[in-house]
Amino acid sequence: MRWILLFLVMLLGVGEGARAQSPRPKNLILMIADGCGPASITMARDYARAVLGREELTLDAIQTGAVRTASASSRVTDSAAGATAYACGVKTYNGAIAVDTAGRPLATLLEAAKARGMATGLVATSRISHATPAAFAAHVPQRAMESEIAAQMLAQRVDVLLGGGWSYFLPTAEGGRRQDGRNLLREAEAMGYQVVRTAADFRRGVRRPVLGLFGPSHLPYEIDRDPEEVPSLAEMTRAALELLADDPDGFFLMVEGSRIDHAGHANDAAAHVREVLAYDEAVAVALDFARRDGQTLVVSVADHETGGLSLGRNVNGRGVYDWHPEVLARVQASYERLIPALRRSERPDSLLQAWLGLDSLRADEQALVAQATAEPDTWAEVVTELIGRRAVVGWTSNGHTAVDVNLYAFGPGAERLVGSFENDELGRLLAELMGFDLPALTETLRREEAVGESH
Amino acid sequence: MRWILLFLVMLLGVGEGARAQSPRPKNLILMIADGCGPASITMARDYARAVLGREELTLDAIQTGAVRTASASSRVTDSAAGATAYACGVKTYNGAIAVDTAGRPLATLLEAAKARGMATGLVATSRISHATPAAFAAHVPQRAMESEIAAQMLAQRVDVLLGGGWSYFLPTAEGGRRQDGRNLLREAEAMGYQVVRTAADFRRGVRRPVLGLFGPSHLPYEIDRDPEEVPSLAEMTRAALELLADDPDGFFLMVEGSRIDHAGHANDAAAHVREVLAYDEAVAVALDFARRDGQTLVVSVADHETGGLSLGRNVNGRGVYDWHPEVLARVQASYERLIPALRRSERPDSLLQAWLGLDSLRADEQALVAQATAEPDTWAEVVTELIGRRAVVGWTSNGHTAVDVNLYAFGPGAERLVGSFENDELGRLLAELMGFDLPALTETLRREEAVGESH
Repeated sequence: MRWILLFLVMLLGVGEGARAQSPRPKNLILMIADGCGPASITMARDYARAVLGREELTLDAIQTGAVRTASASSRVTDSAAGATAYACGVKTYNGAIAVDTAGRPLATLLEAAKARGMATGLVATSRISHATPAAFAAHVPQRAMESEIAAQMLAQRVDVLLGGGWSYFLPTAEGGRRQDGRNLLREAEAMGYQVVRTAADFRRGVRRPVLGLFGPSHLPYEIDRDPEEVPSLAEMTRAALELLADDPDGFFLMVEGSRIDHAGHANDAAAHVREVLAYDEAVAVALDFARRDGQTLVVSVADHETGGLSLGRNVNGRGVYDWHPEVLARVQASYERLIPALRRSERPDSLLQAWLGLDSLRADEQALVAQATAEPDTWAEVVTELIGRRAVVGWTSNGHTAVDVNLYAFGPGAERLVGSFENDELGRLLAELMGFDLPALTETLRREEAVGESH
Repeated sequence: MRWILLFLVMLLGVGEGARAQSPRPKNLILMIADGCGPASITMARDYARAVLGREELTLDAIQTGAVRTASASSRVTDSAAGATAYACGVKTYNGAIAVDTAGRPLATLLEAAKARGMATGLVATSRISHATPAAFAAHVPQRAMESEIAAQMLAQRVDVLLGGGWSYFLPTAEGGRRQDGRNLLREAEAMGYQVVRTAADFRRGVRRPVLGLFGPSHLPYEIDRDPEEVPSLAEMTRAALELLADDPDGFFLMVEGSRIDHAGHANDAAAHVREVLAYDEAVAVALDFARRDGQTLVVSVADHETGGLSLGRNVNGRGVYDWHPEVLARVQASYERLIPALRRSERPDSLLQAWLGLDSLRADEQALVAQATAEPDTWAEVVTELIGRRAVVGWTSNGHTAVDVNLYAFGPGAERLVGSFENDELGRLLAELMGFDLPALTETLRREEAVGESH
């Protein structure tokens, strides 16, 4: 009898039904690897194997598909429209921060979580007012309005804000970039926030709500970071989870590996690969939490690819069938530190050897160095070419590209994230899995805004 | 009572068990998009939307993850080692056709299917003796041994062989490239094969076994193909399925979109995108069959990326945040036809206008044309640059690259193919899903070889 019933159950597809109705996640951790395309992932895995002796990335265990990244205004998105698609489930124009193509505000996952009484957090290695975190907690027509974004973020009373960028929280008179004279750090303290600005203070312990900004602008690249001075993305993620986990209503946390993108723009392969690995460590922290917790959905995605990166390229006119991670392992600093030093240097050869591991230069390499020495403005391009030829790594752009990015998921609801999704479709699906009604909340937002304007 | 049992069943995770034990597929269709990286897929989808008015690719509905493509000898594989990983579940050196790193034969999915009495087929747009189809039905230490590969393929008695490349089936005396004097087409007929060499004969109807070779070497690119003369990949796939479907023991069919790779090597974007779309049409034929049949597992994968393709690139030193499929839609022919014509032409401007849609040349474009006119050997590079700047499409290599490729699956067992896999792991998983014991069959192969050598 039992076996007959079992058989019937299987025939009736109850297994399917059970899957489709996996319990609603209590918590959502959305991780965004800004500018991290498929080749960035392969690059980081190959590097981890060759240099770090690891088998694969943490991410590799939870891949479920891919995401298509076009915005409403272009086949190649920027980070503002990309983050808005995930935060709000709507495609908008490049530059838009949680507003639609008509400039009207769109409710975000973070706002929906807040409305349900959940705890909320944003963690980034860029300025916290930069496009990606901004699109979860502010509504402005242009991403460059960072003073306004910082003020809105604080007004949202996000429980955990960790990253860089205190300059947009301070008035010009106090060393910041705000034209309106406001000191948002002081305002935050008045609102009850713990405000921390050093790794030492951060490590002495934080409480909720916390505003932790560890530098005036973006945090240093991982390759340049002094652990005494600046916490890692993994460390900030762990602290955020410790602060958010005790909310009985659950939490929403967005964690961005912001500077994967910046290293892509710079075509700085050594900085890029270490940013991806630092991001992967933060994913490991989130996954550890989710595995222990059992009620947390972890999703990792990118907003777009940056740089047109390839592992393999032509060298001297012929395609080379290999690439060499160990070349990148010898590089000691990012272009942010290297290029100014090379421009100033009278002995670039010794710098190239000490900082880039480039010794025994071949004739074609010497010619490149001679060119940059004569025209110091070309040092960045020349270093990209020197490293690119030895590592067999290619780039086609200093901007973004259109290639689909990888999608990763773990926890309740992850089975719904298998496949190929539009970026806005993914945002709507996350809202659905969490039981958020973003369109209704958007209506509320707009009514409030209309009331605000009529006063 | 029934509901209690249902509840217990769900609690006990029988739903999970039911999933893991989905019935063994009767048939396996393995589709390989040679040289098709993630950007090729985005490119084809964007082209299909902008030019053909379609919503997405057929493939898009069945993506399940990604595959890592390194071979045993390099982080960047060639097609021989790539196909061997899928066919045999073992990583080997670049150039190897179904032999391991010590040169010993490895049993293939096709041979395992044959051993079980299943019907078998290989369909490609390259020479049928080229690396990818070869690795399913031949064992040689170097892919260039195509005369030997053709002979082994026939000796395997593969039921359906459709593609290009009759030159390796004919002796030099009869217009072929075989040095051994054998005429494999005649031998095939003596073995009972129907041998067809024209689309007209093919369309009059084929029976099993069939050897259909529609040209001396690779079939024409889709962009150049005359449908009167050469069947499409979708058409060959449909015919193969009709011939194989009636076998009571099921069938194994490998279908390769071979020339996606060739267009990548040439950095010929217009030919490349149309090859991907032709492949996607063949996938649609396979999926239609699998949906009706219900017992067929369809898997689509690539062996590697080719060209370091990016959608978005620097133009005049700055990254452009868009790309333009319509530029590719105006191109009328592949480089195989265009470049020789341009080299010969005394009026390249009119050719560029008529065949490439390049009118109203800007100053920078005129300079490129002047350069190629002066040095006709540079025409291919110049056309790549002309098209690349207008379409905003970049390439970094004339060879392969290491980026992970997309994985797609539909049918019984597809749920096991969610995630990120090594290429050899995917091969072993396909064998497991089909219930094939490749290691045991490999032992048998080697014993037979040893006996053969001792005579």
